Amino acid sequence: MLKPEILDALRQAVGPEWCLTSKADLMAYSYDATPLYQRLPDAVVLPRTTDEVAAVMRVAHEHRIPVHTRGAGTNLSAGTVPTSGGIVMSLNRMNSILEIDQENLTVTAQAGVVTAALHKAVEEVGLFYPPDPGSMTSSTLGGNVMESAGGLRGLKYGVTKDYVIALEAVTADGRVFRAGGKNVKDVAGYDLVKLICGSEGTLCIVTEVTLKLLPMPETKRTALAIFADMTAAARAVSKIIANRIIPCTLEFMDNGTIRAVEDYVHLGLPTDAAALLLIQQDGPASVCDADIARIAEICREEGATRVEHASDPTEQDRLMQARRWALSALARRKPTTILEDATVPRSQLAPMVAYIQSVARKYNLDICTFGHAGDGNLHPTCMTDERNKEELERVDQAFAEIYAKALELGGTITGEHGVGEAKAPYLEWKVGPVGIDLMKAIKNAFDPHHILNPGKMFAGETRKRVVVRQ
Amino acid sequence: MLKPEILDALRQAVGPEWCLTSKADLMAYSYDATPLYQRLPDAVVLPRTTDEVAAVMRVAHEHRIPVHTRGAGTNLSAGTVPTSGGIVMSLNRMNSILEIDQENLTVTAQAGVVTAALHKAVEEVGLFYPPDPGSMTSSTLGGNVMESAGGLRGLKYGVTKDYVIALEAVTADGRVFRAGGKNVKDVAGYDLVKLICGSEGTLCIVTEVTLKLLPMPETKRTALAIFADMTAAARAVSKIIANRIIPCTLEFMDNGTIRAVEDYVHLGLPTDAAALLLIQQDGPASVCDADIARIAEICREEGATRVEHASDPTEQDRLMQARRWALSALARRKPTTILEDATVPRSQLAPMVAYIQSVARKYNLDICTFGHAGDGNLHPTCMTDERNKEELERVDQAFAEIYAKALELGGTITGEHGVGEAKAPYLEWKVGPVGIDLMKAIKNAFDPHHILNPGKMFAGETRKRVVVRQ
Repeated sequence: MLKPEILDALRQAVGPEWCLTSKADLMAYSYDATPLYQRLPDAVVLPRTTDEVAAVMRVAHEHRIPVHTRGAGTNLSAGTVPTSGGIVMSLNRMNSILEIDQENLTVTAQAGVVTAALHKAVEEVGLFYPPDPGSMTSSTLGGNVMESAGGLRGLKYGVTKDYVIALEAVTADGRVFRAGGKNVKDVAGYDLVKLICGSEGTLCIVTEVTLKLLPMPETKRTALAIFADMTAAARAVSKIIANRIIPCTLEFMDNGTIRAVEDYVHLGLPTDAAALLLIQQDGPASVCDADIARIAEICREEGATRVEHASDPTEQDRLMQARRWALSALARRKPTTILEDATVPRSQLAPMVAYIQSVARKYNLDICTFGHAGDGNLHPTCMTDERNKEELERVDQAFAEIYAKALELGGTITGEHGVGEAKAPYLEWKVGPVGIDLMKAIKNAFDPHHILNPGKMFAGETRKRVVVRQ
Repeated sequence: MLKPEILDALRQAVGPEWCLTSKADLMAYSYDATPLYQRLPDAVVLPRTTDEVAAVMRVAHEHRIPVHTRGAGTNLSAGTVPTSGGIVMSLNRMNSILEIDQENLTVTAQAGVVTAALHKAVEEVGLFYPPDPGSMTSSTLGGNVMESAGGLRGLKYGVTKDYVIALEAVTADGRVFRAGGKNVKDVAGYDLVKLICGSEGTLCIVTEVTLKLLPMPETKRTALAIFADMTAAARAVSKIIANRIIPCTLEFMDNGTIRAVEDYVHLGLPTDAAALLLIQQDGPASVCDADIARIAEICREEGATRVEHASDPTEQDRLMQARRWALSALARRKPTTILEDATVPRSQLAPMVAYIQSVARKYNLDICTFGHAGDGNLHPTCMTDERNKEELERVDQAFAEIYAKALELGGTITGEHGVGEAKAPYLEWKVGPVGIDLMKAIKNAFDPHHILNPGKMFAGETRKRVVVRQ
């Protein structure tokens, strides 16, 4: 519980109607999209301006109150759950697109702008913002920046971090600063912009971002390849890249995911297929055609039983449906869906997919895998029931082994969902003790009193490393 | 002077023959490519392995001795001059390319590998490493990473930072760590890799890097456009980008530079032209042809008096010569050449170029401008004589006004040369007092005793801000 004078100060900072304390309101901000994590905050504030954010931070700093900043709360690593209590600061009211600069190919927007709304605005003037996280119809730019969100186009176009070139932010003690600019080249000091991207609300609060845009690609082409053998599909992915073709999208779905999608939306997918690849290329028509033809050839060489092509937009959309419905289709099966994002170098896709299947069998779990094959970013997804504590323990053990295997293959514990609280006990597995020391030192440099999203990124204790056995 | 026991420890760390202390050797490592800065170090060490680097750092840490790490010393902001004395550590012996991974499209190499040698090695297998700093035939990857070096292809392909995906480094107290990996997506913790890129040897010592590669573009086309009016050339640059064409290279030379080059290498350049643009596009032949045709049209619309095209490699090389000789041609004119890199958003190119000319007139200085017009990264170059103290004062004042103007136009004090010691007094102009505080806190987090390249990046005092008058 916050003292009355602190609540008064917060009401003064954002206006009384934007400081929420009713049980129902606190409940609404007590969780995000991560299963199993929840806690009521003491207050929720919804500032409208950067100055109001700074005013909130000065109150929080003075009284050493935790501040958990969020947008739409689509986080999948408990990164926006207020597990330390205190204040939840929602930036959803800061949702103005401030400028589309067509000379410098940039867009400047407040943190609370929904990603899909930004896509729409820049596409209307023929420009292109590539990052397209699965959550983009509800997630906000601030959240995308704080997680360095990825998406389906990451293979060719990179992730959110690759597009953020300037930002405005508020420090833990309530000072406003700007970093970066519209310059393509800028080496004036340490790159605060890139450091802040992916910092999960633990270093400062980003209130405004300037994003680099690209000219909209001329056209796109889509293909769907069906495989009777999962390893063959993974081999095809490696061979496409090794043939120096970088498609815009190169997605993978295993048999379990195919069956779940077909069962749900009836697209005519072959439910006996071991795997499918969904491939999209964008650019000039002649290049797209040549690339897709060569990709289809490679898929057939690697044993694809069927390759479907599409060039008209409606037909392309139909093929993309298969992938878009994957998570919703799987989530229907059980009360609790745990979506993971262990990631490996793309050459290691085949062993990783096989390993996930073997772990599912070992622990008798319902795990299906889909994901961004082209960049090695897999989403092993476990359908379970949080009321079944015994099964949850097996899920926990299975995922620990999956992370360990990903690392053994040169991968990482999280490709695009972030560390948050859920993966904090595993961070040291990836970055080592020196890495943890340096990251904690950075955290202390920005937030000496640990009021910014405490409990996230760093765990009290690193989990004992599991030994991977094939 | 280092105590004998410290010298003994250094000799033990790298082997006695690789710890240099003779006057001639110290002299050789007392400067870099920046005029006006020089100091003898107390010792020079040339480690061959990461363990040797760590051993040197443990000695330096124990005795609190400054360590200035360098590669080829092509730095232009005094970033590698040992102005605090102590140790110079040269990584030039660590020059092995360790792996070209054709499945994941990466190359892993030691810090001392020369950039052009890396280009050659990856191009032999059909791969492409875009960063191409002007110094690339002698500069090393370690230096490129520490400065986040740019180059002629930055407009389309970005800078060194955009390609570094993993590194091995040694901390100020001699611990070895790795950050990043071969994963296209990785959000496990703060992005140490991007933070270390551009940190100018002040946070840690990078011993090995893994770089992302691209498939080699199919072909390229080159054009040269001549303008009778400098502003028209700048307008053409803005219009090319605003027409959604991103060429690989879009270089600018003013009349003074054209005359100097023609005088030196006799390429048949029109010495009465106010400016020229050198344009290169790469990619599929059909795309290159279409883009170059449209660019030529735009140049003519904006008043180009002549546009030359080239598609065969020899002829393209001839056109590129004009730009490649710019610095050497200018450097012949006076004993001291000061090459600057004030940078503006590309839409501000015309006012910036005009301002540089007005400042040169105001202070009666010989300043010519060339540079990477497409990314707003200009190289105003002053031909002077360091023995003429009175003129040097005017040079200093002129450049201070140029930085202030670049910032006023939304630009930065350094686009690709780094802050080093030369620009440290101006850093706060760009990043503000909060930015300086945060950057100093990061420095303290990594190097609490300030032994890593002390005196660089941060100045004892910020220079008084000049007021820009048109």
